[in-house]
Amino acid sequence: MSLGRLMAIGGAAGPSLLARFAALAGGPDAVIVVIATASGSPADLEASYVDDFARAGAGSVQPLRLASRADANDAGVPALLTAATGVFFTGGDQRRIATTIGGTRTDSVLQALVAAGSVVLGGTSAGAAMMSGTMIVGGEGHAVVTGPGLEFLPGVLIDMHFAERGRLNRLLTAVARYPHELGLGIDEDTAILVAGDGFEVLGSGSVTVVDAGAATDIRAPADGPIALAGARIHVLPAGCTFELSGRRPSIVDAYAGERGQAA
Amino acid sequence: MSLGRLMAIGGAAGPSLLARFAALAGGPDAVIVVIATASGSPADLEASYVDDFARAGAGSVQPLRLASRADANDAGVPALLTAATGVFFTGGDQRRIATTIGGTRTDSVLQALVAAGSVVLGGTSAGAAMMSGTMIVGGEGHAVVTGPGLEFLPGVLIDMHFAERGRLNRLLTAVARYPHELGLGIDEDTAILVAGDGFEVLGSGSVTVVDAGAATDIRAPADGPIALAGARIHVLPAGCTFELSGRRPSIVDAYAGERGQAA
Repeated sequence: MSLGRLMAIGGAAGPSLLARFAALAGGPDAVIVVIATASGSPADLEASYVDDFARAGAGSVQPLRLASRADANDAGVPALLTAATGVFFTGGDQRRIATTIGGTRTDSVLQALVAAGSVVLGGTSAGAAMMSGTMIVGGEGHAVVTGPGLEFLPGVLIDMHFAERGRLNRLLTAVARYPHELGLGIDEDTAILVAGDGFEVLGSGSVTVVDAGAATDIRAPADGPIALAGARIHVLPAGCTFELSGRRPSIVDAYAGERGQAA
Repeated sequence: MSLGRLMAIGGAAGPSLLARFAALAGGPDAVIVVIATASGSPADLEASYVDDFARAGAGSVQPLRLASRADANDAGVPALLTAATGVFFTGGDQRRIATTIGGTRTDSVLQALVAAGSVVLGGTSAGAAMMSGTMIVGGEGHAVVTGPGLEFLPGVLIDMHFAERGRLNRLLTAVARYPHELGLGIDEDTAILVAGDGFEVLGSGSVTVVDAGAATDIRAPADGPIALAGARIHVLPAGCTFELSGRRPSIVDAYAGERGQAA
């Protein structure tokens, strides 16, 4: 179990989430490394995040181009990552991250640095999906395909662009097949900030938690629609927290002060 | 509580659901009345459903054009509906059904006929939404707007095109605000067939049941994102049943014979 901090963003992060990441990494003292391995156009994304994090007040931001397993096994990587206070994975295709970085020196060093709490690991979209114990690789509805993620956050299965792309069915299918995994559907411009055994929700949307552990009956054929009875669902906007080992949400009323509440 | 039979379809009904409705209405002895009040082009829909039900083996099918409250209060309506064995509401805008038919003679006669079990009431999309105790009128996500339905199925809130339009958020929002109502998200070409205190799922998709009665904490501001902890969710494909008063699903493994199951 990771003791370090992770920030998994559901895609389309606005300035305030990026500023939060920059601040967590140390603000003016931050040394942020941007890894755009998931993307087919890494140069564009690298340039854009270097800009964004610099504007968000990070002291130093640099890209680390890992285009091949040779790059990810390069002897120069450990020193570079060890000097970092934050490492950020961009969006794209999570399979590129898995096949290029999985099991390499970069992977091992990052696992150690995150476990030691010496870097904040951030990622958006594919860069968040890959943090899962089990990763959604692709496919919609009951055609969802899963595979092992890089396990920075074991026991969890993250889906992104959750509300925007209507992905309840594929998340339910994935957790019905593997109810050991806690399903987290993260909206765009929304993040979980994991520290120790819990996470807090940040950003403008919500995190939908699907806990099939409580299910009393599951039918999960390999290639057909699932049936699921008695799963638990929680909808958590910013400020709410969740205890991972006990699978327990805690709701904070972030709105009462501003808007009042419906009866 | 209705003792009669209702068939609420989530939109885009294929031939097999329409054939099931025709059979429930009596097959060759069926007298089906099609009401396209929800639609802006009722003539087209009437013609198309008259065709479909005739092809599905219904003995007699005729449209009943209710374009105004005067039509719905017409003295000829009760005899026509009393002679029917099935009444089917097409899709369109559920507000048209509510404002044209709500509280009229048509409404009263239909309630009595359904309660007596002498007609099968069917509806697709808007024609299903209007059966709810509380109806989703429109809006997506936390902008969802609800209002009273015609209450053929009290205590239930139906949303349609559920998987296809990614409507989890609005269903969760609606039941978080009104946890008394059981939320049913019905996929396209999928139906609930209600008889007495229970329903069975029919068709090619699933019915997602969201039961916020079990929720331990709810924050539901009138105009912001909701927070919801501990709601129950069930995913029910064809063959599964649900007991409404006890809010208890029962899963039938419709797939084991055909496909086998994942471990």
